Amino acid sequence: MSVRVFVVGIGSGDPGHLTGEAVAALNAVDVFLVADKRAATRDLVTLRAELCAAVITHDRYRFVEVPDPERGPDAERDSTAYAGAVRDWHTERARRHAEAVTREVGDDGTVGLLVWGDPSLYDSTLRVVETIGDLLGAEGVTLEVTVVPGISSVSLLAARHRVALNRVGRPVHITTGRRLVGEYDDALGDVVVMLDGDLACAGLVETHPDLEIFWGAQLGLYDEALVRGPLREVLPEIRRRRDAVRAARGWVMDTYLLRPGTGR
Amino acid sequence: MSVRVFVVGIGSGDPGHLTGEAVAALNAVDVFLVADKRAATRDLVTLRAELCAAVITHDRYRFVEVPDPERGPDAERDSTAYAGAVRDWHTERARRHAEAVTREVGDDGTVGLLVWGDPSLYDSTLRVVETIGDLLGAEGVTLEVTVVPGISSVSLLAARHRVALNRVGRPVHITTGRRLVGEYDDALGDVVVMLDGDLACAGLVETHPDLEIFWGAQLGLYDEALVRGPLREVLPEIRRRRDAVRAARGWVMDTYLLRPGTGR
Repeated sequence: MSVRVFVVGIGSGDPGHLTGEAVAALNAVDVFLVADKRAATRDLVTLRAELCAAVITHDRYRFVEVPDPERGPDAERDSTAYAGAVRDWHTERARRHAEAVTREVGDDGTVGLLVWGDPSLYDSTLRVVETIGDLLGAEGVTLEVTVVPGISSVSLLAARHRVALNRVGRPVHITTGRRLVGEYDDALGDVVVMLDGDLACAGLVETHPDLEIFWGAQLGLYDEALVRGPLREVLPEIRRRRDAVRAARGWVMDTYLLRPGTGR
Repeated sequence: MSVRVFVVGIGSGDPGHLTGEAVAALNAVDVFLVADKRAATRDLVTLRAELCAAVITHDRYRFVEVPDPERGPDAERDSTAYAGAVRDWHTERARRHAEAVTREVGDDGTVGLLVWGDPSLYDSTLRVVETIGDLLGAEGVTLEVTVVPGISSVSLLAARHRVALNRVGRPVHITTGRRLVGEYDDALGDVVVMLDGDLACAGLVETHPDLEIFWGAQLGLYDEALVRGPLREVLPEIRRRRDAVRAARGWVMDTYLLRPGTGR
């Protein structure tokens, strides 16, 4: 038995950010497997369904929810324990997806997995799919996986602020809120921060008073918010905008670029 | 006088990698300004024209070539001189573009600037557009600039190899061939290398024998080439594939991801 899998980067939620290849892939899918996540992201589940309805030209597809395993208590910040906890969670998630494929998809069927932004950045889907392939392979099911790249929130952030991520000939460093303060160094080049639940950049205001920030939340959605300027001057405004978005919508997703304030 | 400018990320050259927003932007353009670059990239000029022909549904657009200034002798590797030389070149480039806008585009006209991949990574267009805006502003012409993000070669590389750029909770560092060997450190996380004319990663084989490489050339084009594996084992194969692509097509564009060989 053989099953096709499309891992599709769907960008920001704006249908205009889908590529032609993504639209074709979505139209080829029989069963979309969707993780049933926290209620806070119900909104994103709806958005995803609307996106499919907007671009799929037939009605022979369906959504199957795959309940996400509980994460358990947060691992300590020690990165080995953290990585281990994430790995266990991925394995259980893969097992549930493999079961759903066996149960819901026939031979020669096509499965779709939708990823916000681009599958290559801070998303576990490709790792989960690799494990699904191992699990199903043991049962004689072959997965034929195609990854369709999407517009990442990083590209969209840069586009909205009309800036390049890098200065001439310099590097770009993409990291997480968890790592930012410990890791930051001007030699890293321009730094993009993702997965930051609480504006970790506040911890750099004293030590790096020259930083500029290019911040964006809900990029590509109706409540998109953008702020740019010297970090120490605009941080209070960013907090206000961030809190306002969360108060109005129940959740906020943001990312930002930090750049030493000399030259472009 | 006011002129609209679309800076459009056109991805790899495969029309399937254009977003809906990019297609709409291309259709809104009256005049595409294209840099007349080295003969080696004539091929890319043709590809770009074909891409427009494939998705633009009218014939009221035209291409205007803006001759690129000579780069002059390469600046020394000292980064201040290098950055200065690049800046002078940008300014001259902007001046020629501003002239072309004045000459070729009327009030309320729409200019298109096409960027391979995504405008946010190692591309000078946004810096040039900012300078064009300054130059034309002095003549009373207002530019209204919209940036349309595209699929970067980095996203496409990861998609083709079906890997994420980062390991769980770890950073991603994007840098140039010129900087790679001096800058490399495992603490940077996974490292993406761009603008590398001669596989600078060869300089890491002895010092970092555990590195894995995910390499791709001509991503999204008919002669796409992919190689992955332990760097020290597959480097000769990459050289062969790279030379073969260049021999057949006259030019080669490649990028790669380096990752310490432990875990995913």
